[in-house]
Amino acid sequence: MNGKVSLKDVAKYLGVSTALVSYVINGKEKEARVSDKMVKKIREAVIKLNYQPNQIAKSLKSGRTNTIGLIVADISNPFFSNIARIIEDEARKKGYVVIIGSSDESAEKSQDLLMVFQNRQVDAFIIAPAENTEKQIMNLQNSGIPVVLIDRYFPALKVDSVHIDNFKAAYNAVDHLIKNGRKKIGIMAYATKLPHIQERINGYKAALKANGIRFKKEFVKEASYQDIEKDVAQKVKELLFPSLKVDAFFFATNTLAVESLKIINQSGIKVPDDLAVIAFDESDAFDFFYCPLSYVNQSLEDMGKEAVKLITERIGNKSKKHNNIIIREKLVLRESSGSRRNK
Amino acid sequence: MNGKVSLKDVAKYLGVSTALVSYVINGKEKEARVSDKMVKKIREAVIKLNYQPNQIAKSLKSGRTNTIGLIVADISNPFFSNIARIIEDEARKKGYVVIIGSSDESAEKSQDLLMVFQNRQVDAFIIAPAENTEKQIMNLQNSGIPVVLIDRYFPALKVDSVHIDNFKAAYNAVDHLIKNGRKKIGIMAYATKLPHIQERINGYKAALKANGIRFKKEFVKEASYQDIEKDVAQKVKELLFPSLKVDAFFFATNTLAVESLKIINQSGIKVPDDLAVIAFDESDAFDFFYCPLSYVNQSLEDMGKEAVKLITERIGNKSKKHNNIIIREKLVLRESSGSRRNK
Repeated sequence: MNGKVSLKDVAKYLGVSTALVSYVINGKEKEARVSDKMVKKIREAVIKLNYQPNQIAKSLKSGRTNTIGLIVADISNPFFSNIARIIEDEARKKGYVVIIGSSDESAEKSQDLLMVFQNRQVDAFIIAPAENTEKQIMNLQNSGIPVVLIDRYFPALKVDSVHIDNFKAAYNAVDHLIKNGRKKIGIMAYATKLPHIQERINGYKAALKANGIRFKKEFVKEASYQDIEKDVAQKVKELLFPSLKVDAFFFATNTLAVESLKIINQSGIKVPDDLAVIAFDESDAFDFFYCPLSYVNQSLEDMGKEAVKLITERIGNKSKKHNNIIIREKLVLRESSGSRRNK
Repeated sequence: MNGKVSLKDVAKYLGVSTALVSYVINGKEKEARVSDKMVKKIREAVIKLNYQPNQIAKSLKSGRTNTIGLIVADISNPFFSNIARIIEDEARKKGYVVIIGSSDESAEKSQDLLMVFQNRQVDAFIIAPAENTEKQIMNLQNSGIPVVLIDRYFPALKVDSVHIDNFKAAYNAVDHLIKNGRKKIGIMAYATKLPHIQERINGYKAALKANGIRFKKEFVKEASYQDIEKDVAQKVKELLFPSLKVDAFFFATNTLAVESLKIINQSGIKVPDDLAVIAFDESDAFDFFYCPLSYVNQSLEDMGKEAVKLITERIGNKSKKHNNIIIREKLVLRESSGSRRNK
């Protein structure tokens, strides 16, 4: 029965009406009050008989696919893989299936994924955009498909977004280091024009200024995403060796923190006595490091939930008004940012 | 131009031939030697004008979509998110885009994802299957679509698979603990019928037997996937408190290891003096734990590459012969499995 199975064939195979099969295939089983058992039976038959999507594409023209396309910047980063899990769980509760793509921080790959996902008729997109994808997002939105950005955002675009106040988060972290007596504070960030990272650098600068500490360009280290392990190692070392040039370090993301900690761990430099540190987001490494890390926490749970709420409201609602949801962040203080213990 | 844009409209918009647009939309730009710049232009126009998939579905009937569906058991597990990244990179080199779904170890969710992905006409599937999905995989394969299983497998199914020798991996790890003088060895595994976990338990048992150590059922702890944090904590504690009942622990996965280490870290029990441990797979936590962990390494790189190689060979090749690729694993020895240092 390869490739030419019709809706009728599926109905006949199961001994049910074509209308019933059609309801399930069109995701209208709830409205039509089809029993869970029958839904399962029909779905299994669809796969077993290899009922193919030409009919489905047709039936879909009329309505929705109940599918959300999630495009993250790098699925191997636990920040994104954890939020993907939360978004799936939330979306599922509302009857949506999520299909995921990873743009690997590449605008080209992002473009390919957008096309592949659009061709597969997702109802909407949740996107953590890569650098230089502003125009892609704009085009996508102009095409009429609902889009919500998470974590990252483009201030010039009128598009729904969910993120923290990155400026404030960084400001508070650096201010805390200064209040604890640190004066020579390095920051490790990405070399990127993406606004969320730029805002973290701006928050760092503002905290220095508010505390009367002169900004030093050489304390701002920016690592390339493409070669992160090597680049972070090199740039951290510039501030640690041959002599320790800073007394504190703020890491602007979890990956940057983990890579930096690997170097610090081998260096003999003691945290927090020689060097106070604050990281961003979470990692098992922060718990197992000999001196538990202070970090900026952004609630992935809140971000995922708000994104799914926004996107499901947006589906089928052509309102032009856009929403900018700022979720709360908090500074979690543990030992790594504390006062010097003995010196 | 919402929803009714034709291939002709796209061509007209760009001032190029419909044939040119058709090549790009059908993924034949290389055969037709369309320039990269033009490919980009056409893809952008497709998104901008919201050229919709009815035509694409039609054109796809004839050929391939150059899309691989990857379904993993839990995208928030770094094992799966890292392998997803590798599979994407490899697939991309061969001209395929990967779309990812996460079954969350649920057979029901797996079924939904298979249907959604099949309806979206992926060329093939790479799957790390959840428990009780044997029949789904069989049906999928019977429908004629190529399938490769990774990490996990069902011995009764004649389906391509890529995995390590789990029995041997566990045997070697436990044998090493015994050779280092440990005799009371616990194992933390999942409560699952999945063969790869059962094989790890079998390897553990066989190593005990080969070394003349009596198997004790109470040393085998099986945590539920659904409530892992709480369940691991409780079951680890059964062997640690009120008195330490084991002198070594083998953790059958990375997640089980990380959750167990959290308890050990707070317990005052010293690794490796009081308790030797060996983990499975990798985690930043293994490096930052005060006593660097020994672990069973399976090369994600090899697994991802072999899976993509198999699946791309399989696409368009109706051969019934199936391949079982066993990739190498190795025991990486660091301090946690070593001899007691001072006692």
